[in-house]
Amino acid sequence: MELKPTKPLSGFIELMPTQQRCFDECAKRMRAALAGAGFTHIDLPSIERAEVLTDEDNWDEIETQMFLFQKGDTKMGLRYDGTVGLARYTAGNANGLVFPFRAYQFAKNYRGERPQRGRYREFYQMDLDILGINELSIDYDAEIVAVLSLAYDSIREFVGPTFARVGSRKFWDALFDYLKLPRDSARQAFVLIDKKDKLKDEFEPALKEAVDGAAAKAILSVFSAGYQAFFGKTAALDAAIGELDGFIAKIRAMGVKNADIDLSIMRGHAYYTGIVFEFFLEKFPDLGSVGGGGRYEDLTGKFSKTKIIGVGAAVGFSRMMAALLDEDKINLAPFEAPVDAAVLVLGQGNVLYAMNALAELRRAGIVAVPFLDTDKKLKNQMEFANKIRARFCVIIGEDEAKKKILTLKDMADGTQTEESVPGAIKKIKTKA
Amino acid sequence: MELKPTKPLSGFIELMPTQQRCFDECAKRMRAALAGAGFTHIDLPSIERAEVLTDEDNWDEIETQMFLFQKGDTKMGLRYDGTVGLARYTAGNANGLVFPFRAYQFAKNYRGERPQRGRYREFYQMDLDILGINELSIDYDAEIVAVLSLAYDSIREFVGPTFARVGSRKFWDALFDYLKLPRDSARQAFVLIDKKDKLKDEFEPALKEAVDGAAAKAILSVFSAGYQAFFGKTAALDAAIGELDGFIAKIRAMGVKNADIDLSIMRGHAYYTGIVFEFFLEKFPDLGSVGGGGRYEDLTGKFSKTKIIGVGAAVGFSRMMAALLDEDKINLAPFEAPVDAAVLVLGQGNVLYAMNALAELRRAGIVAVPFLDTDKKLKNQMEFANKIRARFCVIIGEDEAKKKILTLKDMADGTQTEESVPGAIKKIKTKA
Repeated sequence: MELKPTKPLSGFIELMPTQQRCFDECAKRMRAALAGAGFTHIDLPSIERAEVLTDEDNWDEIETQMFLFQKGDTKMGLRYDGTVGLARYTAGNANGLVFPFRAYQFAKNYRGERPQRGRYREFYQMDLDILGINELSIDYDAEIVAVLSLAYDSIREFVGPTFARVGSRKFWDALFDYLKLPRDSARQAFVLIDKKDKLKDEFEPALKEAVDGAAAKAILSVFSAGYQAFFGKTAALDAAIGELDGFIAKIRAMGVKNADIDLSIMRGHAYYTGIVFEFFLEKFPDLGSVGGGGRYEDLTGKFSKTKIIGVGAAVGFSRMMAALLDEDKINLAPFEAPVDAAVLVLGQGNVLYAMNALAELRRAGIVAVPFLDTDKKLKNQMEFANKIRARFCVIIGEDEAKKKILTLKDMADGTQTEESVPGAIKKIKTKA
Repeated sequence: MELKPTKPLSGFIELMPTQQRCFDECAKRMRAALAGAGFTHIDLPSIERAEVLTDEDNWDEIETQMFLFQKGDTKMGLRYDGTVGLARYTAGNANGLVFPFRAYQFAKNYRGERPQRGRYREFYQMDLDILGINELSIDYDAEIVAVLSLAYDSIREFVGPTFARVGSRKFWDALFDYLKLPRDSARQAFVLIDKKDKLKDEFEPALKEAVDGAAAKAILSVFSAGYQAFFGKTAALDAAIGELDGFIAKIRAMGVKNADIDLSIMRGHAYYTGIVFEFFLEKFPDLGSVGGGGRYEDLTGKFSKTKIIGVGAAVGFSRMMAALLDEDKINLAPFEAPVDAAVLVLGQGNVLYAMNALAELRRAGIVAVPFLDTDKKLKNQMEFANKIRARFCVIIGEDEAKKKILTLKDMADGTQTEESVPGAIKKIKTKA
């Protein structure tokens, strides 16, 4: 019989236990940071109706980007982000929720495209959103950034510090109006600015081709002389600039230190309307953005007549973690030895006594793992204890069972003592 | 424009925030119990190659039971349990793992069948397994049951106590041999015993139709007089009975009180070979089994020439929780008020001061939620604080900002005091 493949499909992440423990610890900390800021967890289905996932009906093309399938008459597919489900859920449950509604998701999303380096077909994304009915103060935009910064800070010891770059869609809209750019040139300029980082030296010539000379000069001056030079030109520019400056003051008041205005931040998606932002890792700038978001004015239009607006952010959690784990950028030492005590049992006759002791250790909160192939020699059992990097060994043979004690071996210094079970618990808890 | 549906697809679970917090707390506790017993978390892809999911190639039929799709030349689908992926992962990574390998999963699984009451198309299942290469002491079977019992105990305050029913495939194999049942009759008897609970009064006549009179009488006597009557009949029966009795002694040594031998427990799946067990909720027996498992002798045969055997269990977590939450069987009071303090801000001019205070509260570990529509009247802001059931209100207006204090309102007794930020933190931490 031919053996079946053991590798996961390409584009899917699979971690070894030590990596997984690091991944989980980082997820746990970031989730706790969001919960601590009053974001409630919602866990939505991974499968949605196709009509919910997309407004288009060019199925052949969409099928290359998503995982779609049909059951009975219903076309459905795997969600590709957290926003579609959130919009559906919020519209459907608006009466039972309190607004501004603060929610976070930590869930797998799916992309059906051919996988590339750093782009996965299945990945965890952490979404946080604050949603309001009809209105939502722009101060929540600052709060989202502050909370996201707290969340990244919670894993700082593993991934290092972040910095945030803050842009404004409003500023560009106001500037393009002031420069009287035709709609088409404005759209081209928008796309070029969004790609400025990637285009590098090609940005300037491309921009000069897209818009007239005076406009190009003005746009380029935003990146050289700064956006403040446009203060006083129009009311819309003043409003956008005031909003940006106020935004920075507010996130600083909430403790965000590493953040700067960078008007090349656009966040491609069409639905953003105000402040936009992206987070980067200081130590790993090549990773690109590890999260970002912004404000959107109409989240639920296709589901409900109630107007729900929001500000949200998404963390590319799997992408960030997989990249750092793949390249050994995270010190995994703290995740290598999760076991406090290996319980080694010599002889089947002593199993009941050993199981009693094991249960007592566990009740005391000690992570204890038994080795129950009781006819194996102590030497072989020790090998197991070494492999799982147990901090202590609890050895139980005939002598220990008879005397109702156990032998405790400290694996750090090799010392071995006879202990009562409570005595062992005390020693293990002090040192492990 | 026609509005799109806001309900999830049928067969998919969607919880409200309070329910979700209860669901998450129970999942967290059960996972912590498994981690505390030295089970390492593994998180495998939801999508597997179709050839990994099934050995059959009657795609049309399989497609009605699973979610299958094709990308390029590759047929793939959503996993329907934790075992397939675990087998593939363990076979593929055997060199990097320590055996006996102790792993748990907490993941969504998928069934493509038409949904029925209590059967979902997407559901969380918690799998725990201990895997050995070539050999694995049957004492691990007892340990799995003891650990699973600990895990259920961790959520006892929400779901009440469990009881376990323990069966033995080996006993029936030995008995059928002793009774010289033809292979076909033995298979029929096996199926009937597996369904004994459901068949009720129909069990006896059906059994008598399937096997001859003497055999039927012997089988029925197992449920009336007890299995011990067969001790001494054959070596195989003695071994099976000894194993069962030893098993019960071992789980009792590990603190499992509510467990009994019940030889009608079979766990339909063909792959079990020894001890099998199921857990039930004492308070909700109608829910049926909320988890169970057993020993299997060949887990990875289709992936690897290395023989990996195991003992494992699965908890139908979503099914259990959704049933209890749906029927209001769980007291949700502890999950209704997660917010320690609502921070109410009166007037845009005081936002920076308020944000500073908010950040300080959060740094102190207080779950604080701001209301940032600062032109809203205090009365409206209070309504928000009431709706989110905040334990305290922190009120910041012009006076507070000027004096660098805040007004703290205890929502339990309505008292209101002026406090410094550290003073408020102290009060909130004492009472919230």
